[in-house]
Amino acid sequence: MSDFNITALLPHLHAITGPDFVFTDDETRTRYGHDETEDFSFPPNVVVKPGTPQEISAIMQLANEYKIPVVPIGARTGLSGGALSIYGGIGLSMERFTKLEIDEKNLQAIAEPSVITQVLREAAFEKGLFYPPDPSSQGSCSIGGNIAENSGGARAVKYGVTKDYVLNLEVVLPNGDIIWTGANTLKNSTGYNLTQLMVGSEGTLGIITKIVLKLIPKTSHNVLMLIPFFKAGQACEAVAEIFRAGIVPSALEFMERDAIDWGLKYLDNTSLNIKPEVQAHLLVEVDGNYPDVLFAEAEKIMGVVEQFEIDEILFADTEDQKNALWKLRRTVAEAVKSNSIYKEEDTVVPRYELPTLLDGIKRIGSKYGFQSVCYGHAGDGNLHVNIIKGNMTDENWLVEVPKGIREIFELTVSLKGTLSGEHGIGYVQKNYMDIAFPDANLQLMKGIKQLFDPNNILNPGKILPDNL
Amino acid sequence: MSDFNITALLPHLHAITGPDFVFTDDETRTRYGHDETEDFSFPPNVVVKPGTPQEISAIMQLANEYKIPVVPIGARTGLSGGALSIYGGIGLSMERFTKLEIDEKNLQAIAEPSVITQVLREAAFEKGLFYPPDPSSQGSCSIGGNIAENSGGARAVKYGVTKDYVLNLEVVLPNGDIIWTGANTLKNSTGYNLTQLMVGSEGTLGIITKIVLKLIPKTSHNVLMLIPFFKAGQACEAVAEIFRAGIVPSALEFMERDAIDWGLKYLDNTSLNIKPEVQAHLLVEVDGNYPDVLFAEAEKIMGVVEQFEIDEILFADTEDQKNALWKLRRTVAEAVKSNSIYKEEDTVVPRYELPTLLDGIKRIGSKYGFQSVCYGHAGDGNLHVNIIKGNMTDENWLVEVPKGIREIFELTVSLKGTLSGEHGIGYVQKNYMDIAFPDANLQLMKGIKQLFDPNNILNPGKILPDNL
Repeated sequence: MSDFNITALLPHLHAITGPDFVFTDDETRTRYGHDETEDFSFPPNVVVKPGTPQEISAIMQLANEYKIPVVPIGARTGLSGGALSIYGGIGLSMERFTKLEIDEKNLQAIAEPSVITQVLREAAFEKGLFYPPDPSSQGSCSIGGNIAENSGGARAVKYGVTKDYVLNLEVVLPNGDIIWTGANTLKNSTGYNLTQLMVGSEGTLGIITKIVLKLIPKTSHNVLMLIPFFKAGQACEAVAEIFRAGIVPSALEFMERDAIDWGLKYLDNTSLNIKPEVQAHLLVEVDGNYPDVLFAEAEKIMGVVEQFEIDEILFADTEDQKNALWKLRRTVAEAVKSNSIYKEEDTVVPRYELPTLLDGIKRIGSKYGFQSVCYGHAGDGNLHVNIIKGNMTDENWLVEVPKGIREIFELTVSLKGTLSGEHGIGYVQKNYMDIAFPDANLQLMKGIKQLFDPNNILNPGKILPDNL
Repeated sequence: MSDFNITALLPHLHAITGPDFVFTDDETRTRYGHDETEDFSFPPNVVVKPGTPQEISAIMQLANEYKIPVVPIGARTGLSGGALSIYGGIGLSMERFTKLEIDEKNLQAIAEPSVITQVLREAAFEKGLFYPPDPSSQGSCSIGGNIAENSGGARAVKYGVTKDYVLNLEVVLPNGDIIWTGANTLKNSTGYNLTQLMVGSEGTLGIITKIVLKLIPKTSHNVLMLIPFFKAGQACEAVAEIFRAGIVPSALEFMERDAIDWGLKYLDNTSLNIKPEVQAHLLVEVDGNYPDVLFAEAEKIMGVVEQFEIDEILFADTEDQKNALWKLRRTVAEAVKSNSIYKEEDTVVPRYELPTLLDGIKRIGSKYGFQSVCYGHAGDGNLHVNIIKGNMTDENWLVEVPKGIREIFELTVSLKGTLSGEHGIGYVQKNYMDIAFPDANLQLMKGIKQLFDPNNILNPGKILPDNL
């Protein structure tokens, strides 16, 4: 941790938020020093919990004066280290920003950033409305973090990602200015799109304090099926074929055999009886308001996947069965984590390239000596690659694995894909950015960062490579 | 027009594109000096028609050296003057960029910017795919222009606007660098979103040379109905109610009585017999693959609108009837233009605020003595306001009308709306930008422009207010 004159800063912070919301004890700093990324711990020097945009504005002005880093911290469920205080400084916890309003007249949600995503989705649902983005961590992640990372989730394949629902943002800029980025409208061609520049900027360009989201009418029915494939590559191939048959599923998830086995073991779930020869599963959902239509679509999907080597399809008939399947899918990362330290990559390619990507990952894993568990949002071409440390030596983990990751990303980009589909670049992927972008792009990104934050005090050391 | 040393430039331009693609004759310059915005004429000093991104790169390097403006010119159907060479210079016609490829495997289109939007939509349709954005000018506008202005259209209400379909862009930057802004993926959380920064930037940050678009499976059926309202305000109110009933129409268009009358007259169409008391119409479409579902949704919509004072609903039963209704809707601007010089504003508000906006526009018109014809994409809260010059004196047109427009925009912004939903700011709205944004936002936009284009040579004098 860097050595800032925190002591000099404290009276000012006390004056801004009141002393009850300023913490320097080890326990608090440690708690706010990690997220869900690997086993990292980067405690801030001081944790502050402001209550208003004006307080944040005052903190930013102070931080500029003292040239001290400020890192916005949300629910700390991130997988790219975006909320880690890698240079210490002020950890700015947004946890007091939890107001939520559903505007039924305009089909909008007005949320503060620490509203838990699932809380928002349920509040909308109660009013007959739907906020589709549903990251696996929806029960614990916050909407502000979703916007910072441009999160996706299982329903993105039909409904789009977080960015597609963000209409307007109240933001405290690094210099303390408080702005709205746009308007509360569905269409907007009024100047450069500052809203979309903020989405996915991982807390490096401004601190989001209020969010206007588009909602849509909710759908009343869905059909969920689990399709076991005897060949993992064929499961990937089937993904593109389902779309080519004219169907847009509301979810289309891929799980390697290992992923489902780890999940079942972790959940102590013995209800699924999977043949040893099964190599992968697709979890496919269609949704809508007319059950007959959904059954017709499910039949079409069956027609498509029966061209491949599959075992018997499992239909989830009850809400309990559906929840159990979704829980299994959402638990994979946690299950892997409970077994071993791991690195999670978030590769994304055009949908049709998925089999090539999966093959390549396994080949690269053999070359560099690591095991990987792959699963993810196959409908979007978004494959999560969990690289397991297991019994690997620290040296291999720190030297060989990054070489393999670099090769995986090179493959991804050669397939016209990119590094991250929904987790962000943050701390852990920044030094791979040269694979995705030539210097011209990186210089533009650096210029944007400098324009917003000339003193480089807001979440420094994220997104942009160290040597830029 | 400014006085650049075009003569010195010409041999260089000849060397870059070959002399066959460089034009200095009056006729060509005049032709490329206007778009569909009012009656403006701003001819460039020279029109160049490059054939490759590399040629454009060389032109930009030359223009930087000579400090001469370059204005990208597409199909010249714009309504905000974005393609006008207001300071003369090089008019860069993109008309040779017309290649189009439909990638059926990944459900993507790869288009050069001068592909006509309707050509792209039809090419996708032939492969069973759908590119939803459909500006009224789709038969003559180009996809590059659509991206520059972030165009919408009637189907945006269900399917979103241009920005929601742009995955990746090849762009020549003002300094001549040729970059891809992102990746060909449906999800992307890899650095600042340069793609979305480019969309809607009206040719001021870079010149788009290739576009990767998302396509979706096409729908096979639709139902179209025209609903006459005895009160215009109630037609606006019905818009929000249709959504609150859980329906997402694929189009929901509003036309004032005057708009439909002008359209009918212009088309010499006598088939629609509209009662004198009818003040406005909603044109409502639902689409999908299952006719039974569409009829059920149409019945729901009838249930909603019957709560208001309406005349008999007209269902378009045949393709011919549907085409006739759409032609009527799309012709309104042309019909108004054939009668009088007019200014077209592109106001947008949250959907529920539409009746308040319409009321306010009429009130402001009375105050400043102008007639307006209002119509547009009511489902998005996007109301086009055609302000008719008619017999107004030039002084009133130049002095009083802008005051009225300013008041309309102030009303729009007070309703949490903004200046432009889909036409862009360009030349004609730039000096109203202070209404939509405080100085902090405008300074950021100016900073972004300076970052991309330090010599301010690419489409100068657009978007940002003159006094910034």
